[in-house]
Amino acid sequence: MDDGIPFWGSKFRVRPMAMPELRKDPLVERWILVSTDRLGRPQELAEPESMESTDPCPFCAGNEHLTQGAVLTVPDESGRWRIRVVPNLFPAMRDVGAFQPKRQGLHLGGAGTGIHEVIVEAPQHERHFANLPPGHISDVFRAYAARISHVRSDARWRYPVVFKNSGAAAGASLEHVHSQLVLTPHVPPEIEAELRGSQNHFQQTGRCFFCDLIEQERAGPRFVMESSHYFVYMPFAGRFPFELCVLPRSHCSHFDRQPSETWNDLGATLSDVLNGLRTGLEEPPYNYVIHTMPLSEPESAHFHWHVEIIPRLNNIGGFEWGTGCNINTVPPEQAAAFLREMVRQRN
Amino acid sequence: MDDGIPFWGSKFRVRPMAMPELRKDPLVERWILVSTDRLGRPQELAEPESMESTDPCPFCAGNEHLTQGAVLTVPDESGRWRIRVVPNLFPAMRDVGAFQPKRQGLHLGGAGTGIHEVIVEAPQHERHFANLPPGHISDVFRAYAARISHVRSDARWRYPVVFKNSGAAAGASLEHVHSQLVLTPHVPPEIEAELRGSQNHFQQTGRCFFCDLIEQERAGPRFVMESSHYFVYMPFAGRFPFELCVLPRSHCSHFDRQPSETWNDLGATLSDVLNGLRTGLEEPPYNYVIHTMPLSEPESAHFHWHVEIIPRLNNIGGFEWGTGCNINTVPPEQAAAFLREMVRQRN
Repeated sequence: MDDGIPFWGSKFRVRPMAMPELRKDPLVERWILVSTDRLGRPQELAEPESMESTDPCPFCAGNEHLTQGAVLTVPDESGRWRIRVVPNLFPAMRDVGAFQPKRQGLHLGGAGTGIHEVIVEAPQHERHFANLPPGHISDVFRAYAARISHVRSDARWRYPVVFKNSGAAAGASLEHVHSQLVLTPHVPPEIEAELRGSQNHFQQTGRCFFCDLIEQERAGPRFVMESSHYFVYMPFAGRFPFELCVLPRSHCSHFDRQPSETWNDLGATLSDVLNGLRTGLEEPPYNYVIHTMPLSEPESAHFHWHVEIIPRLNNIGGFEWGTGCNINTVPPEQAAAFLREMVRQRN
Repeated sequence: MDDGIPFWGSKFRVRPMAMPELRKDPLVERWILVSTDRLGRPQELAEPESMESTDPCPFCAGNEHLTQGAVLTVPDESGRWRIRVVPNLFPAMRDVGAFQPKRQGLHLGGAGTGIHEVIVEAPQHERHFANLPPGHISDVFRAYAARISHVRSDARWRYPVVFKNSGAAAGASLEHVHSQLVLTPHVPPEIEAELRGSQNHFQQTGRCFFCDLIEQERAGPRFVMESSHYFVYMPFAGRFPFELCVLPRSHCSHFDRQPSETWNDLGATLSDVLNGLRTGLEEPPYNYVIHTMPLSEPESAHFHWHVEIIPRLNNIGGFEWGTGCNINTVPPEQAAAFLREMVRQRN
């Protein structure tokens, strides 16, 4: 019991919790997740420099016995798996019971019940998502959508968080290309804020905020590229250097319900943008996250799904964490002009 | 002009902006600061391991010519400076004109006008704040208060952000003990959220949220320590492992207006806590930030100033940045029990 999981330094070890807990800060009304399970993760990428794998990679073809059984596989032409979705061995949340937050004096918290899956994006030990063919990238996003659609019937999950950590500085612990899906029993704070903002805009204007934004940014200095179905720009108030936003050009609130003819274009657009970043910034660590409507909500006229891409090129200090005001050292206009040129050179 | 400031990789350089800009995200109503000036900073601490200074340290006694002239000095017994406050050579904001945000379509932004000072906390090349005597730590906090009181007459500044970055992983670029004061023309998002929450609590209960919290947490598992005038605990929904909060026991909304008899105790309390962390976690990188009332506000019955201490022991990935929901891998109750014991052993 007192052995616990090693933490920072040699004196303190963490005792595993029976269940993760979702807790709400009563003052700023922000949810956080307390989860000791994440501490057991392999730290293959502890140092950004040590990109050589040591142990056998659990995500490589042939090592399927090192993960749990697949909940979804996408086959290649010869019937072998090309994309594989498996339960996360170190889940942030666990699929046990339902979320029933309880008040404890000023606090509100409850068991962090949810589902945490890993999307293994290729059978070979590929380290860079941007190396995959555009059609393959489309298939990865189709796999996200398939998983989201599949679990929608379980009323316990309110939100599907799809994200990628690429590179140690972006929080990745394994180098083999992969991304993650966490189904949460609550709507996360950032999504709540976006929903509130887009509802306000709709009430004031009768229009979707994102549709208006596309119109405003298309001719502007933060525009990056446009394909038949997608629009890419850098947000005016981006928190990070080279922060990007990828939006469908036609209004659509649920990521997994976008029209079938748009999927191929999504992979091609992401391939263009990620390869542009890669060429221009020499393999930057980055995250991406899909923002979509909460699971049980009907099609919405005010919210528009999108992908946030966050390169992780700067240090976050006390000013940022203490105030919630990030300092972005690269004007989005300069970053967009540079990336526009990088994308243009490729095409 | 096209030379610019080096950024990530070799192909992209940043052109210096004429002025920093504060920009508001129209959807989630969050301010960010775009500032190229911070890019020029020395990166003495680029790697956590390279703690040896190479160049002459601009903060050491004898090297005063490497900084701008002091705006405040606190002398020692022999009349030499013991604490020295100087303008930051790489200010996040500049003291030029007033903040007049303008709407640009959906966006709101304006010149990031403000003051950015560095508090050099000791004349010798001391790397660890916790090594300073408790009375010296008190004097550092008195120096913050003196600067805040001094600038209050300038109606352009709405908020004083006092923070420390200790260690490269916490955003420090120089190892000599120092902290920073940024006077901003806006109330930062996190403070706005706290003010909103504490106002709500006051309207519902007629009491200060923080006074209620002290009462609730005193006998609980997240209590760390208490001195004559200060109370230290770990927040129930702390975003980071070992996140701490230090509050005055008697209600007081403005940091710089706390009663004179409390200052000595503040240094002693911080010394206890920071040395406890240091002993228990082996020199963790950390930030602290003071949260206080906006400058021009009168004494408030609902807001209570406090210090947030944020050890920086974990990686932040796409889940956190994309959802605003941090994953804390160490239950605050376990962290508090450990730190309580570390503090007890010292006393």
